[in-house]
Amino acid sequence: MKDFSYISHLECPKCGETYEETKVQQLCKCGSPLLVRYDLEKVKANVTKEEISKRTNTLWRYHELLPVHSEENVVTLGEGMTPFEKFPTLGAEYGINNLYIKDEGIIPTGSFKTRGASVGISKAKELGVKQLAMPTNGNAGAAWALYASKANIKATIVMPLDAPQITRKEVFVAGGDLHLINGLISDAGKVVAGLVQNQGVYDASTLKEPYRIEGKKTMGYEIVEQFGWKVPDVILYPTGGGVGIIGIYKAILEMQELGWIEKGKFPRLVAVQAEGCAPIVDAWKKGEKESKFFENSTTCAFGINVPKALGDFLVLEGVYATDGCAIAISEEDLLAAQKQVASLEGNFICPEGAATFAAARILREQGWIKEDEHVVCLNTGLGLKYPETVEIEGVQTLQPGQELFVNN
Amino acid sequence: MKDFSYISHLECPKCGETYEETKVQQLCKCGSPLLVRYDLEKVKANVTKEEISKRTNTLWRYHELLPVHSEENVVTLGEGMTPFEKFPTLGAEYGINNLYIKDEGIIPTGSFKTRGASVGISKAKELGVKQLAMPTNGNAGAAWALYASKANIKATIVMPLDAPQITRKEVFVAGGDLHLINGLISDAGKVVAGLVQNQGVYDASTLKEPYRIEGKKTMGYEIVEQFGWKVPDVILYPTGGGVGIIGIYKAILEMQELGWIEKGKFPRLVAVQAEGCAPIVDAWKKGEKESKFFENSTTCAFGINVPKALGDFLVLEGVYATDGCAIAISEEDLLAAQKQVASLEGNFICPEGAATFAAARILREQGWIKEDEHVVCLNTGLGLKYPETVEIEGVQTLQPGQELFVNN
Repeated sequence: MKDFSYISHLECPKCGETYEETKVQQLCKCGSPLLVRYDLEKVKANVTKEEISKRTNTLWRYHELLPVHSEENVVTLGEGMTPFEKFPTLGAEYGINNLYIKDEGIIPTGSFKTRGASVGISKAKELGVKQLAMPTNGNAGAAWALYASKANIKATIVMPLDAPQITRKEVFVAGGDLHLINGLISDAGKVVAGLVQNQGVYDASTLKEPYRIEGKKTMGYEIVEQFGWKVPDVILYPTGGGVGIIGIYKAILEMQELGWIEKGKFPRLVAVQAEGCAPIVDAWKKGEKESKFFENSTTCAFGINVPKALGDFLVLEGVYATDGCAIAISEEDLLAAQKQVASLEGNFICPEGAATFAAARILREQGWIKEDEHVVCLNTGLGLKYPETVEIEGVQTLQPGQELFVNN
Repeated sequence: MKDFSYISHLECPKCGETYEETKVQQLCKCGSPLLVRYDLEKVKANVTKEEISKRTNTLWRYHELLPVHSEENVVTLGEGMTPFEKFPTLGAEYGINNLYIKDEGIIPTGSFKTRGASVGISKAKELGVKQLAMPTNGNAGAAWALYASKANIKATIVMPLDAPQITRKEVFVAGGDLHLINGLISDAGKVVAGLVQNQGVYDASTLKEPYRIEGKKTMGYEIVEQFGWKVPDVILYPTGGGVGIIGIYKAILEMQELGWIEKGKFPRLVAVQAEGCAPIVDAWKKGEKESKFFENSTTCAFGINVPKALGDFLVLEGVYATDGCAIAISEEDLLAAQKQVASLEGNFICPEGAATFAAARILREQGWIKEDEHVVCLNTGLGLKYPETVEIEGVQTLQPGQELFVNN
């Protein structure tokens, strides 16, 4: 009888301490996030990539490499296997012959946060969690609140007043316990830390539970599978908390270990940030292993307004180990890229995702990306969730019966 | 060499007149919409449902049954194969043991209109169309503008001032030619009719070009495929222009003809409308074949605010032929269902889709739906596109440093 999951234990990437995965664990004693380890030999013996390719179109197709033991605990809205499409027109514009989007807007809740929520909530359900709390810049809170409701787990969500308005409505309609804060996500984090300490609530903050990464890593599995079980040359990722980049790097390592892809060949991982909040870029420029708190951060790409990420050292490790880089984009450039993607390729993407296209253009101009390389830009969510990024100008209002003429 | 499409011609369902599909066609001379016909014998000889099940996760997996001859003309953002999920908790609440959602929010542009846009624009591209115009209640205009941009076709979109705000931003960001009108979709329709007549622009209005239905019919193919190549007992569909119900009925007939499903077994098709705009329900109650213009129509489910649909007779035919029914839902009931779906099953659906769940509940209470029947509610779009349907009440705003206590 084959197992649904081959999870074996949790491990600290900083001090090497190990933990059981059969009970609730948060951070390592040393303060580092924990990573999930699997018995990859058993995975290898029990499933092939050809089998996976025939499975359901959700991220749960990789269930042997996800942390949930019993299929009954899977909380799913049909998330994953998002579109992976070539952008020929924009590619020609940028001088990149093989430019792709991995479009994480086309997923329940309209953002990639759903992956972490589906896997994180499923494992929380399996562990018997009844109540959780988390700070959020909006999209993660929305996703976790919706999945928590489905799992009958109470979710307390604390988000900045400035977070996208629609995300608080998602939490509310889900029946989540919503609180707004007149501050940043770091302030929301302090409120949640207090709640966790004083009331024993499960802490679902970024990287403070080990399973969100596992959801996010499926982006790496999917890119490789959709690219024909090969790795592309470059993956650009909008980096706030950086869980996606950590997850994608982890996925590549696992697939190498499984023999599903060539050993030692990595996509160059690019951490894309906004000029108004670029702690990882600053650290990378100095060759440092950790970032510093970025003071007075601001950007319309709210999801990447994270002045200091708990997993910064893991993000930087992924960038260094793959010969990647880090780059900061101006507000003007990312908004221009958003309009360009919509008008040339038809995808209305979020400003965070748009930053990766602006970055691809700049890195191509600088020669860091070569003409024939295969380049994947990761769009983390729907433009629909950021209506304020599009300002309408010069549009006519007609009266009934009025005639219209257009230029042919 | 196998063909990509086995389209043969266009046919009028009213007077039987036939038309060539190799040039631009709009309505029949008799004023009826035209339907696309295929050489189903050739389809049967060249593809099996088992082969289709192994293909790409987009609606283009059914390409033999779609109207585009050359794969090069396909304009795709990776649309289709949307989630089909069981709702156990809500099903228990309603006393329906097998309740499903077909979630059309999880698709590019966040609404099912994308299907019609992808197929309609692809065929327009193949026919050499350079400029089109259409009236819209918002979502269709957004989808067509985005796909038109990708195909390098100029799109003039006329929408009511009251249409969802976000949809005008989608048209604008796509670089579409956006016009607002201080009236209803019927007023917008008159403006477009003038433009078509005076300037020879391609008319992309609902059912005035024959290919949108072909996109929409793929919902029928997908439901049947995802349900294991069987038909469910009941499909509930929010009915405005009604193209989806026409398309699903057409898909079932084609699949019967192909021998992919049992001949003569239909899902009972339910046309769900809002009490504020229920022309099809009124006609169905009287056993009539066509509807009358519904005066002073109003509903927050803007996509089904269509006072008189051009294809009303086809919708009613589908309902009668399958022993279906038509039902009108109050604003209160559909908003309550929207909240219920989000808080019990985690999907934040649009008010149009919510109406189908309210309808399922009522039809179960009336005994029209039986306890063990397999019932599919079609959600046509994301709740995200209708932020005004969720009003937040009683939420606390914290100051940084403030402590929070929650009820365990």
